[in-house]
Amino acid sequence: MASTSPEPSTAAAAAAAVAETGCSVQIRRLEATDHEKGFVALLSQLSACPDLTASEFAACFADLAALGDDHVILVAEDPAAPESRILATGCLFVERKFLRGGGKVGHVEDVVVDAAARGRGLGLRVVRRLVEIAKEAGCYKVILDCTPELRAYYAKCGFVEKGVQMAIYF
Amino acid sequence: MASTSPEPSTAAAAAAAVAETGCSVQIRRLEATDHEKGFVALLSQLSACPDLTASEFAACFADLAALGDDHVILVAEDPAAPESRILATGCLFVERKFLRGGGKVGHVEDVVVDAAARGRGLGLRVVRRLVEIAKEAGCYKVILDCTPELRAYYAKCGFVEKGVQMAIYF
Repeated sequence: MASTSPEPSTAAAAAAAVAETGCSVQIRRLEATDHEKGFVALLSQLSACPDLTASEFAACFADLAALGDDHVILVAEDPAAPESRILATGCLFVERKFLRGGGKVGHVEDVVVDAAARGRGLGLRVVRRLVEIAKEAGCYKVILDCTPELRAYYAKCGFVEKGVQMAIYF
Repeated sequence: MASTSPEPSTAAAAAAAVAETGCSVQIRRLEATDHEKGFVALLSQLSACPDLTASEFAACFADLAALGDDHVILVAEDPAAPESRILATGCLFVERKFLRGGGKVGHVEDVVVDAAARGRGLGLRVVRRLVEIAKEAGCYKVILDCTPELRAYYAKCGFVEKGVQMAIYF
């Protein structure tokens, strides 16, 4: 599987993004060095996420990177900020099926925006890019689970309510 | 990753299952030869699932088998039946996360029972076994999406409603 990045990272692309959005925050794939930029602490704003040592983070990063473009974690960062921190993140993984002639489904997971960076549309930018990646990957649909309160938020990205999520916690 | 089967397939185990349940239907992992036993036609009772040629099925089977125990498809079959057909199926795939210290989540997908075999508890047997496999794999939770009408069905396996499913179809 090709491991090409879906995010151009050239200075020109960054400048174009600033010109288009008036915002210097960039959306890019998670990198191994993001452990030092508060990625795990950001996730802990979403759900239980104990800190990982550098080697634990590296091992988890390697496990997920091995899945190539079937597992994409995006992060938002402002390169112009005095301190380099991850401001938002979201994940897409691609499930393969026998259904639909060996079809693919994109699952959006673990979307969170830092409490101090909310209201700037960063989460929506992350989710919209994940949806684009799912479409580019040939998925016939992309799905996510959320609380009822977040229905309107995800509707802004084109999601419509489809069913109920059921769970068992061990 | 070990590719040991979670389903013992010895005659003794089969006999024990018959003794326990009064039913000769066995739950086992999908095999490459199940293309000839109506597996794809069964899936088409759930969602759009055009027939696959033998080579298309083999390619899809190989792709999924390469995921090892991170992707388990179970099927129900009655070896005592005059014609060997797949009566029910369900799938579990395991998602790895940074959350929960590099935790794992089991996703149950594509559960369907042949229209002529419903009411015998085969779907529940498949789902309960998938939940056991998720637990054995170290998942901290197992989740699924369904229509509101199926809440009570999955509650029989211990699932509780947790949120809403949102989707975009391309």
